[in-house]
Amino acid sequence: MDSVFFVLEFIGTIAFAVSGAMLAIKSKMDVFGVCALGVTTAVGGGIIRDILLGVTPPTCFTEPVFLLLAIGTALLTFTIFYHNPFAHKRKITDVIMLIADSVGLGVFTVIGVKACFYTTQNPQLFLALCSGVITGVGGGVMRDVMAKNTPFIFVKHFYACSSIIGALFSYVIWVLINELVAMILGVIIVVILRILAARFHWKLPKVHLKNVK
Amino acid sequence: MDSVFFVLEFIGTIAFAVSGAMLAIKSKMDVFGVCALGVTTAVGGGIIRDILLGVTPPTCFTEPVFLLLAIGTALLTFTIFYHNPFAHKRKITDVIMLIADSVGLGVFTVIGVKACFYTTQNPQLFLALCSGVITGVGGGVMRDVMAKNTPFIFVKHFYACSSIIGALFSYVIWVLINELVAMILGVIIVVILRILAARFHWKLPKVHLKNVK
Amino acid sequence: MDSVFFVLEFIGTIAFAVSGAMLAIKSKMDVFGVCALGVTTAVGGGIIRDILLGVTPPTCFTEPVFLLLAIGTALLTFTIFYHNPFAHKRKITDVIMLIADSVGLGVFTVIGVKACFYTTQNPQLFLALCSGVITGVGGGVMRDVMAKNTPFIFVKHFYACSSIIGALFSYVIWVLINELVAMILGVIIVVILRILAARFHWKLPKVHLKNVK
Repeated sequence: MDSVFFVLEFIGTIAFAVSGAMLAIKSKMDVFGVCALGVTTAVGGGIIRDILLGVTPPTCFTEPVFLLLAIGTALLTFTIFYHNPFAHKRKITDVIMLIADSVGLGVFTVIGVKACFYTTQNPQLFLALCSGVITGVGGGVMRDVMAKNTPFIFVKHFYACSSIIGALFSYVIWVLINELVAMILGVIIVVILRILAARFHWKLPKVHLKNVK
Repeated sequence: MDSVFFVLEFIGTIAFAVSGAMLAIKSKMDVFGVCALGVTTAVGGGIIRDILLGVTPPTCFTEPVFLLLAIGTALLTFTIFYHNPFAHKRKITDVIMLIADSVGLGVFTVIGVKACFYTTQNPQLFLALCSGVITGVGGGVMRDVMAKNTPFIFVKHFYACSSIIGALFSYVIWVLINELVAMILGVIIVVILRILAARFHWKLPKVHLKNVK
Repeated sequence: MDSVFFVLEFIGTIAFAVSGAMLAIKSKMDVFGVCALGVTTAVGGGIIRDILLGVTPPTCFTEPVFLLLAIGTALLTFTIFYHNPFAHKRKITDVIMLIADSVGLGVFTVIGVKACFYTTQNPQLFLALCSGVITGVGGGVMRDVMAKNTPFIFVKHFYACSSIIGALFSYVIWVLINELVAMILGVIIVVILRILAARFHWKLPKVHLKNVK
């Protein structure tokens, strides 16, 4: 089971590091900024979750394998963009960012639910949901605030909703069936919802204001 | 006594959730953004305080009543604005935001002082002040950073000063007289100072720079 | 040895408080904003580090000497700018900010390494590095986010690199030689690197994008 968690977190770390590094490149940061933003995105959600659950120092500092992986991924992303002409093809980069961000969101959501089960025996549904969603969206929010974007979570419709629904599913399946199914299905649900939402421009209702600024 | 604390936090949660939800609506966020910003404002200060005082997981996750209340309030605010014509009357919404923000600031300041007394026996004046002010202004700062506004605390003159003065009063009264008077008087002082400051445009001194950019 | 740490932190606190206060004045904040930003810059990095290492409440709240020092420094900076004509000489203020920020960065980097040694016996290199860099750059990042600037760390080339190199040196020297040399040399290395980098516009490589926005 541990190796499943490891592989999942491995994939999620790479995905989020790529999304952070690409945003940094878009924002014209230098190679250090690219690494910093890649790392922040990849481990940021986990750090926030560990602090909230009282796990100090956060796991990513004591077992730095994923942090180092994030640095390596960000450097690689930087190198590819530095030399490669396809970096200027807006469409391709947009698709890569969407997929990277979706996979990261899905993986870290279920990792968050798992962390809650492992830290507190028999966690309440509510705590597990919060842990999942915070781990899933935390890194992305930090990435966006640091790059001075309005966080995705507030503008991209349905972003955090995918994470909430995925966390809910993986909690229920974890309790009723088993960990493995909970993890895999949770990731798949989040990724599918997130990509469908982006593809078909799912929108949540909004208040349309006329005179108010 | 516990019921007084409960009623106070109930009122403060509603007030801050309204202020966060209204800012989100102004910033053209969708219904999810409205909930997220309402919740952040309502429970954000308390989460920061709990982390600083070493209370993990923060109370709002283990006893989610106020978090759920904040979600409900934000949804209700959204619904009212969605259907109601008065949403476009700038003056009315400004007054509501001022009152909501003032009440939230007052209540959470004294709740912060109280939390410090309950977590650490015989807290120093200084720790209690910090706890009060952080709880009071923390949610609002997170709200403003997330909506990409410069935090109120830095531009609205006298904002945090009201919180500091209120925290100081309620600490002194708590030690000299009793908890109940400390709570009630503290809230009243903060709200009055904050509203007077907004009404009469109290200003703190500023350096006027000519050539420096 | 303790007195060396005290003197170092004393100097660093003043330096960072000055840099925060000056940025606040530039950003046209009032006297309260100047204090708040000065304090945030001076104690922000230490608070983040204490939370990550599990030291709660953070030292700066339980032993508020440095926090009070930061408030005093910010107030003094404000007073000087309020009355003094040289406040409008852009060049002088830029030089002061550069020096203040460099000294603060150097001091807090080594203080962070030290805090890691004192909190966890025999810390791993990696944890010590992170502790040093977070303490060093944390206050500055909070300062820049709050004043709505893109954090220095992402745009000023070589900023965090100086901190990483200094932390690395002071860790190695601490283990091989002794604490005193580690502290002093660490500060000197960071300050020199940071100022050289600013003076000679050291740049790290960047991806130059044409069509991507």
